[in-house]
Parts: sequence; C-alpha cells; structure tokens
Amino acid sequence: MSDHGSQPNDSTPDKQGAARSLDAHVERYAQRTAGMTASEIRALFAVASRPEVVSLAGGMPNLAALPLDSIAGEVAGLISADGQSALQYGSAHGVPELREQICDIMAMEGINAHPDDVMVTVGSQMALDMVTRIFCDPGDVVLAEGPSYVGALGSFAAYQADVVHVAMDDEGLQPEALRQAISDVSAQGKRVKFLYTIPNFHNPGGVTLAVDRRAEVLEICAQHGILVLEDNPYGLLGFDGQTYPALRSLDPDNVVYLGSFSKTFASGLRVGWVLAPHAVREKLVLAAESATLCPPTLNQMIVSRYLTSHDWQGQIKVFREQYRERRDAMLGALEQHMPEGCSWTRPDGGFYVWLTAPDGVDTKAMLPRAVTQRVAYASGTGFYADRLGSRQMRLSFCYPTPERIREGVRRLANTLTDEMELVRTFGSVSQRTVQGPQAPSPDTA
Amino acid sequence: MSDHGSQPNDSTPDKQGAARSLDAHVERYAQRTAGMTASEIRALFAVASRPEVVSLAGGMPNLAALPLDSIAGEVAGLISADGQSALQYGSAHGVPELREQICDIMAMEGINAHPDDVMVTVGSQMALDMVTRIFCDPGDVVLAEGPSYVGALGSFAAYQADVVHVAMDDEGLQPEALRQAISDVSAQGKRVKFLYTIPNFHNPGGVTLAVDRRAEVLEICAQHGILVLEDNPYGLLGFDGQTYPALRSLDPDNVVYLGSFSKTFASGLRVGWVLAPHAVREKLVLAAESATLCPPTLNQMIVSRYLTSHDWQGQIKVFREQYRERRDAMLGALEQHMPEGCSWTRPDGGFYVWLTAPDGVDTKAMLPRAVTQRVAYASGTGFYADRLGSRQMRLSFCYPTPERIREGVRRLANTLTDEMELVRTFGSVSQRTVQGPQAPSPDTA
Repeated sequence: MSDHGSQPNDSTPDKQGAARSLDAHVERYAQRTAGMTASEIRALFAVASRPEVVSLAGGMPNLAALPLDSIAGEVAGLISADGQSALQYGSAHGVPELREQICDIMAMEGINAHPDDVMVTVGSQMALDMVTRIFCDPGDVVLAEGPSYVGALGSFAAYQADVVHVAMDDEGLQPEALRQAISDVSAQGKRVKFLYTIPNFHNPGGVTLAVDRRAEVLEICAQHGILVLEDNPYGLLGFDGQTYPALRSLDPDNVVYLGSFSKTFASGLRVGWVLAPHAVREKLVLAAESATLCPPTLNQMIVSRYLTSHDWQGQIKVFREQYRERRDAMLGALEQHMPEGCSWTRPDGGFYVWLTAPDGVDTKAMLPRAVTQRVAYASGTGFYADRLGSRQMRLSFCYPTPERIREGVRRLANTLTDEMELVRTFGSVSQRTVQGPQAPSPDTA
Repeated sequence: MSDHGSQPNDSTPDKQGAARSLDAHVERYAQRTAGMTASEIRALFAVASRPEVVSLAGGMPNLAALPLDSIAGEVAGLISADGQSALQYGSAHGVPELREQICDIMAMEGINAHPDDVMVTVGSQMALDMVTRIFCDPGDVVLAEGPSYVGALGSFAAYQADVVHVAMDDEGLQPEALRQAISDVSAQGKRVKFLYTIPNFHNPGGVTLAVDRRAEVLEICAQHGILVLEDNPYGLLGFDGQTYPALRSLDPDNVVYLGSFSKTFASGLRVGWVLAPHAVREKLVLAAESATLCPPTLNQMIVSRYLTSHDWQGQIKVFREQYRERRDAMLGALEQHMPEGCSWTRPDGGFYVWLTAPDGVDTKAMLPRAVTQRVAYASGTGFYADRLGSRQMRLSFCYPTPERIREGVRRLANTLTDEMELVRTFGSVSQRTVQGPQAPSPDTA
C-alpha cells in the first residue's frame, strides 16, 4: 500500500536469477501495476474460513437474520414474470425504479436528490473506482482519514494517486488537521483532488464525525476548491436508530456521495450507488460503460423488489440490534480481558472497533502468533498509505456470534499480554526479528 | 473515440461563456476523462427501446427461448438452501466450482486450463478493463482489428492507450497487415502492449480468422514480444455447430483469453471470465479487488447451477438455430433490397453483418434520416479509434424477429437509395452539411 506512487516499474531486464523472473510478462506491466500488492485484508479471507479461528478480521455482514425463503420466492416470481428484462443488458446508469427508491433511502439522512443524479454500481467499491478514475491523474493527492478504508486505498493506488492522511479523534476528522494537511500539500506544489471521508461509524476507526464539525469540514473544502467524497455504507446502522445529516445534505454541489446495500441487505448482490452533481454523474456513466457496460440487471431488480415487498426498515432494525449486541459483547470482553496500556474506540454503530496497543507492539508481526492462538484481526498498517498503524488493529464484531467474540477477545488479550511481556523483556518486535521483505501473511503461517 | 491520446484536458480556465462551464467541476477531471465521450452505441439504446423503430443497432441477445420458469425454480432453491453464501461477499478470484466448469467449456475449443488461472469478472467488459489496467500506461499502443469492438475501444481509451488498427478481409485479421502495423509502431518509437483480437464471428466485422492464419498471427506476436488478448464471446455460436481452435489452445503462455456467458446464457447476470498465465492472473485479481471487491456471488452460483441442472448445450443449439434463421433473414433481405454499390460480410456465426456503402455516403450523418424511416443501425466510425468507417455500418440480427429484420433492411435500403441519389446529385454528405461539433445523435433526432 505504501508504494503506490509514480515510481517506475521495478522489473529487471535480467531474467536470470530473480524470483520474479518466473513471470514471463514482468516487463510488460503498466507502472500502476507495481503498486498493486496483496492487502492484508485479502490474506485474511483464507484465515477467516478456518472454523477453529475466531476471525475478528473480515467485514462480512451477518446475514443469518435475512428471510431467505421469502426472498427466494420473490426472486423466482421476478425471473418468471420479468426474466426477459432481468436477464438482459441494461443501462450503465442503472434501473430507473431502483434509482428512485435510492433517493427515498437517502432522504432518511436529509438528502434531497433527483434519480437522474444517481448511478447504480457493482457495490460502492466500483463507485470509488469510477470517481477516482474520472478525477485522479497520477500524483494527484487524495486526503483521507488516517486510518482509512483499505478498499479505498486500493482504488487510489490503482490510479497512482497519493494519499495524505488527516488525523481523527473520538469526534472524527479533525478540522484543524484538515487545514494543516491542505496547507502542507499546497506547499509541496501538489494538487488535492478530493477529501475521502466516512463520516458515520468509520471503517476502521469506529468513530463518527461530530455534527458540529460537519459544516466546518465542508466549508474548509469549499474554500480550497476541494471536492468531498462521502462514503456512507453504515449510516443506517446506528445502534440507537440515530442518523446524522449527510454531508451531501449540507452541500449538494460539492459532495459526491456513495451508498450501498451491502450492509443493509445483501453484500453478495454487489449493489451500491453514487450520487453526484449532474455533470459529474454524466462522466461517471461514461466511465462505467467502459468498466462493466452495466451493473447486473437481475441484482438491481432483486433489491428493488425487496424494498417494495419487504419491511426493509424493520429488517435493518433487526440487523442493528444484532450488531449492538455484538458490539456490547466486544466492548465488555475488551474491558474485562485487555492488558493495561491498550485503548480502543467505542462505536455507536457500524462494524468496527479500532484498538491501539502499547508502544513496541507490532500488530502485523504479531498476527501469525495470534492465529496460532486461534484469533485473527486486521493489522493497522493496511489502513494507512504511509505505513503508520503498526501498533493498531481493527476488530470486527459484525460476523461472529457474541460468544465467539468474547472467546476471540480473550485469546487476543492473552496474545497481547505475552507480546507485551516479550517487549518489556527483549525490546520491541522490530528490534527482535530479522527484517524480511514481508512478515508472513496469516494464510502461510 | 479519436481523442483518447495523452493530450492535456482541454478544459478552459475561463468559466464565462463556454457551454461546458455549466459543469462546476470541469477543472478537476483527470486527463483520461477528456477522452470519455458518449459512444454511438450508447445513444442507440434509447432508440432501440422505441417500438416503432426496427433496431439493427444493439447487441442484445435474444433470450426468448430461455426456460424462465425452470431457471426461476433453480434460483429460488439456491437462495433458500445456500442464501447465506449466495448473498455474501466472495473472493475476487471467483467461485471455485464455476471456475472448474468454465475450464470444461473452454475445452470445447481446445483449451487445456487450470481453474486457478481463471478469474470470474462482471461480464467480459470488466475483464477487458482489468487487462488494460495492468498492462497499459498512457501512450502504449494496442493493436486491434479495424473495425473493432466499441466497448474494447472504450476501455483502451480509459487508460489512454493508443489504438492502431490492423486490416481484416473475409478471412479475418491479415497477417501481412499485422507485420506492417508492428513495424510502423516500432518506427515511431512506441511500444505495443498487446494485440486485441476477436477471432470468431467478429464484432462488428462478422468474419472469422481462418484456421491456417491462427498459428501465423501467434508466431508474429511471439516473435515481437507482443501479448495476444483473445476475446471470444461468440465462439460457441457457429451456425453449423462448428468451433475453431482458440488462439489460447495454440499458445498458452502468450495469450490472455476472455469468455462470457452473456451470449450463451444471460447477459443481465454479467458473468464473464479471463484466463491468463498464472502470474498475470495474480495481478488481475489484485486489480479486480480494487475495482469491485468481488463479482456478485449469487450470479456466479446461478450460472454454476444452470450449467449443472440444465441442458445448456441443447440451449445453445436452440440459440444457434434462432440466430441462423435471423442471419438468413438479413442476408436474404440485403440481397433483395440493397441498392447497387453496397457490399456486406456473410457471417457463419455470431450477431453481426458489416455493411459498406458506396463512396460519398456518411453513415453517421445518415442515421437521423434512417431513424425517421424507423430503422436504426450502428454507424461505422464508432468501431474505429481513428474515425475510419464513415461509409460502414454494423447491422445486428440477434434481437429482432426475422420479420422485423426483413422490414428493417427494406427501410434501410430505401434510406440508402435516397442518400445515394442525393450524393449523386449534390455531392457527398460532408460537402452538403454544415460541420457542427457532432452529428445529432439518434435519441435527439
């Protein structure tokens, strides 16, 4: 994630000897391909699937409460009656009825939008990719909270944008740090293209941007001619049913907004969306045509039908209550088991707790030992473009049951206690271990 | 399509006056965005939906013969029994069982592949986008048949690659023209990254690469260190059930192969794939993670189930017979109605006929007049990156019924006859009309 800049492809013309010469195509790749490295999250998918390991690593929503039989019946009816449309190409813009329903959903967070300005995407990951595609030249700067969503960092790297992180505290992005970052980038003669932010129930930070900071953040960006990219997959998953005013609702002309059905309905359908000022939306549709022609028609119709036929808000309430119970299990277990010196965030919604270990602990180096203790997490450096986060980790409470969460945190606390004992005795991990090219990833441990 | 090079964004800092200043974000776009223009195909989607117009323009497969009720039942069973997986995130690599089945399908065209080397994509359009992403820097050259698939040209433009066309004849890509193009590009000091080719039932050319040319084309590319990107969505739609040896089967190490279920099953599911040498496939998975995280799990499982539970080869035979009947209707009507001086290809499979009008006819300028006569086609320039194709058009026989095809060709023949009469009397269209920035697109006509 750190080497996503515009440095040349470091392929070697000498095909003898070097391990990478096993790839006969090594000299053909584009420069951007040099920045594509396996994310730590990715390696963890393999771990998460082992039943004996409690995975606090992944971000998979808990779908156990979905009414599958009823959804199955709806989908069957849809294919029987409208299969000629559902199985056929559609437009890159998206199914009109779904775009109208999306506007109704966004209205719950204060957004007043026209369906024409919505484009449906293959998950909001594709929306991230398309926004970056139309705005970022190599070397352009994207501001993002530190830490930030690993998938967003991947998209920015794919377009060779440089990420500059902006610090958060318990009230989210710090306006003063934002001003400073803009000033620093400007002093380097570089151009900021947009601020990428997850204001609600941050991934991985677990914090929410305070309401009274929202107008200030928008004003700073407007003042410096910086677009705001608001990513809001968790906004309806506040544990007390609370919602916050979307940044888009406060500044419609300077905010591009991303939404998703992955956390409120079904991630495997890959249905997300982007709401953008009209001219930007037109560019996005052109970009999307060359990326996928169109999002899957069937999936859009399934979501649309689900929103019409099911009590989807009642279903979200069920999800919220499950996630609240799991959050409570995690916070309770952290309180009970974690050794002195660790601190963590206390989310009011979403999927994640962000934990900071004491100085000297290297969470990436520790991960194989944690997996040996049958617990996995996402180490912090994956959430930074600049290799910060070495003593942080993201703990997800979305997928495992409360019992498993408690057991996982207990195992993690033991691992951390052992690690801290080692640090006290022998110095920090990086002083102890021989520095290889990469710590072993959990699926090779 | 022509301005996809690496020229700077031609936005004007002066926001007064110019029409494009309506876009407040005009100065923020990436350079690549300047090359994103609405394709002629896209504008035609709007036309195709008007019932009074016979559209010979789109490439929508005919799904009328699909057993919808039976598919509906299978999908319902899938969601009821495996919904927890089908509606959940998967890997960017794709569902393992489907990748195995894809290998069985490719074996029908002589390909011997391992499922690990297959990546499932959101239609083969996404595969095109990912391959271009990992290989092409701005200014790199892609060789492609002239004409070529408009969606591929869009992907190449999105990565600011320069397309150099290679001429075809009735036997497909001409090896001699390929040698010449490589030599020309090399003389300009530019680098060819790959040859993009549709060997079977070409879109839009309607021709097939002769079997005895295949080894020669591969040898030329291997000799010059040029990768081959083989796009084969129509390979199983030969009207006599004939198949041709895939280029991939003849040179596994230097060919990246693209396949799709859009024409053999259901386009709206958006399930395609790429088969690549192992190291390239690894890069593709990393690129795909930042593009969409993963393809929709449900759609992959639907295709996998369909291949297991249905007589999918029997279904393809039904499709082939329908398309053959439509091809016959089109060729018969062209023979009967077209004015002297027009010529066209005679496809043995696939969806398309490529028609060449006499000198002086401009098919793009003529399109609004054709739509007034209630027939639409795809004008030729959209299939070239260099504005060739002005007297060509693509005629699709995939979607309309044989009766509608005959009526459409009759209307088109009348339009062409009138146009040729005008050309004879007043000179060519471009001499007659005032040159505006763009001919009116059919949905504004």
